[in-house]
Amino acid sequence: MKFIHTSDWHLGRQFHNVSLLEDQKQVLNQITRYVTENQIDAIVIAGDIYDRSVPPTAAIEVLDGFLNHMVQDLNVPVIMISGNHDGAKRLGFGSKQFDKAGLHIISSLEQLCTPVEIVSDQDRVVHFYGMPYSDPETVRHHYDIQINNHDDAHAYLTSQIGNVLDKDVHNIVISHCFIDGAETCESERTLSIGGADRVSYEHFKSFDYVALGHLHQAQKRGLETIRYSGSIMKYSFSEQHHRKSVTLVEICDESGEITTRALPLNAPHDMRVLEGELENLLELGRSDANSDDYLLVRLTDKHAILDPMAKLREVYPNVLHLEKPGMLVGVDKEISQARLGRSEVDMFRDFFLEVQGDEMTDNQKDMLSEVVMSLKKQSEE
Amino acid sequence: MKFIHTSDWHLGRQFHNVSLLEDQKQVLNQITRYVTENQIDAIVIAGDIYDRSVPPTAAIEVLDGFLNHMVQDLNVPVIMISGNHDGAKRLGFGSKQFDKAGLHIISSLEQLCTPVEIVSDQDRVVHFYGMPYSDPETVRHHYDIQINNHDDAHAYLTSQIGNVLDKDVHNIVISHCFIDGAETCESERTLSIGGADRVSYEHFKSFDYVALGHLHQAQKRGLETIRYSGSIMKYSFSEQHHRKSVTLVEICDESGEITTRALPLNAPHDMRVLEGELENLLELGRSDANSDDYLLVRLTDKHAILDPMAKLREVYPNVLHLEKPGMLVGVDKEISQARLGRSEVDMFRDFFLEVQGDEMTDNQKDMLSEVVMSLKKQSEE
Repeated sequence: MKFIHTSDWHLGRQFHNVSLLEDQKQVLNQITRYVTENQIDAIVIAGDIYDRSVPPTAAIEVLDGFLNHMVQDLNVPVIMISGNHDGAKRLGFGSKQFDKAGLHIISSLEQLCTPVEIVSDQDRVVHFYGMPYSDPETVRHHYDIQINNHDDAHAYLTSQIGNVLDKDVHNIVISHCFIDGAETCESERTLSIGGADRVSYEHFKSFDYVALGHLHQAQKRGLETIRYSGSIMKYSFSEQHHRKSVTLVEICDESGEITTRALPLNAPHDMRVLEGELENLLELGRSDANSDDYLLVRLTDKHAILDPMAKLREVYPNVLHLEKPGMLVGVDKEISQARLGRSEVDMFRDFFLEVQGDEMTDNQKDMLSEVVMSLKKQSEE
Repeated sequence: MKFIHTSDWHLGRQFHNVSLLEDQKQVLNQITRYVTENQIDAIVIAGDIYDRSVPPTAAIEVLDGFLNHMVQDLNVPVIMISGNHDGAKRLGFGSKQFDKAGLHIISSLEQLCTPVEIVSDQDRVVHFYGMPYSDPETVRHHYDIQINNHDDAHAYLTSQIGNVLDKDVHNIVISHCFIDGAETCESERTLSIGGADRVSYEHFKSFDYVALGHLHQAQKRGLETIRYSGSIMKYSFSEQHHRKSVTLVEICDESGEITTRALPLNAPHDMRVLEGELENLLELGRSDANSDDYLLVRLTDKHAILDPMAKLREVYPNVLHLEKPGMLVGVDKEISQARLGRSEVDMFRDFFLEVQGDEMTDNQKDMLSEVVMSLKKQSEE
């Protein structure tokens, strides 16, 4: 019995005004290949299918195409829950009809205690419980009980499932939450201040495997079998060092033992941060085999540069963000001059060199100094 | 073999900033009752399920609830096409999975020539072809042929179905278009100028029944069996005299003969136009059993009235629009005065009477005249 655990697809995400949908499609194709190569019995998607509650039509088409291929062509059931980025009710349209086709969308707490049963070729029975993303308020209202934070909410939800658990089969729970102590990164939407969104892994100990979504880095929490699969691709520059993958979960048909393995995913464009002086980066870019990666460039030059973005994009077409900590950007003239320790004359000379390709002559420098001085004098009067 | 033909639900429609969703739910309940009372074999919805391509979540929930009840609880298949108001791709999400559950959403021309087969208890086989709303450009691109207008498009689409038609069964086509000569009303979105959206009924003659949507008034076009069911409730004041219904279509199991019958729908609030003088309408309203209908009020009073909307809403709480053709509304002061033949002094006297409940005294009239004259004089200087 084998299933793939994945999460945080964020289909339809725009990143610095660039649509990532084509990249996402290619990554989904890699998942499809893993499914066929490994004779997978089911796919679990632990929330944040879409990037927002009303996804763009093109993202809906991509998901539709993937799901059709899985459940219709490959006959592999898909079990998914809604995440905090998904619009639960919108995602849940038609879910009762989908069940018959092997597509299980769990987006309402009504569905919490009804497991999806998957039986392997060797008759190993596995029950998958889906816990749609639920903030404390949702749980409080749904069950009419006192719930103060995410930990309370998940303690309650897991205990609800605990009441109906069949101990004779393997039980898997799918959840989209922030298990305490896990590392975070920029693109995980901050849910609350001061840790009220943290959930203890202890509540999940009675399950054989916990398929988590929400955090973008693959990792285990507390136990080997409580795992985040991580997102399918990088969604912020803070994720630049992540290695993205889906998690292949195998339940040994004889022993019932569970093992996991990461199957790597490679997005067509990597997301990287480059830091250095412009000239060095341009040099680097000319021989960079992955020059079309999505880049954040941090320029360390200390002098003014004319339109550095245009220059960079000649070699790195997908520079998405530029930081110039050493230069005059969004700061007062006085502050930047003080920081750079450079006068107007110095800065104009940088500019002149940049535009003309030559240093100013001494004559030109004198004239410039005169003009600047007379302007300064005028503004002081 | 019996099926219900309906169309133009426009779920989620806002009318003069009032949500019609509660009314729509109640009307759908009436359809549900007809389905159970008449042992219906299928429901056909001929487009404009939603009012817009990205419907509000609450409208999605209403549709989901209706469809779940039909296909899951009552086991009655539903066949629907997308209309011009629907977002075809958004509506079509998961349609391949839905098929297995008896929910057939036809929103792509890919599905045009694949009929949904329904077999009655008496083994009468009926093929339903769905023609999603298609403007000429869509058809031109999809088939890569020359198409100039809606008539061309529908000639082509019907001929495509004609190529695969099984003459041994009953063939029904579902379409959302503007069959030539049909009466229109305000709330049918105007598609083009000069009749380029008109389609001849002749193209549809080879079908046993044509279930049309788009026009809001129930009617036949060309043949007895080419019919609009009309919308499920009134969606504009121009529809005030429509009688809304669904069409019950019966195919005689012995003879194969087709008969139709209108099953009336009654929205909780009617949509009506009231015309008259304020005092008369207020009088009428006090004894009007349906005073909570949605109203357009056309006041015929010739004198100025202070806040007539508030006065009307005391007896008719759902006045949604007010027209005052005889009064100073959105016209120049000079024009309205000329039309009314009333001076500033006259109008102020109306206002005074209205606010104070008493005529001005002669003294007050004199003072008013003086003030108005001095103001006029000042503005002329």
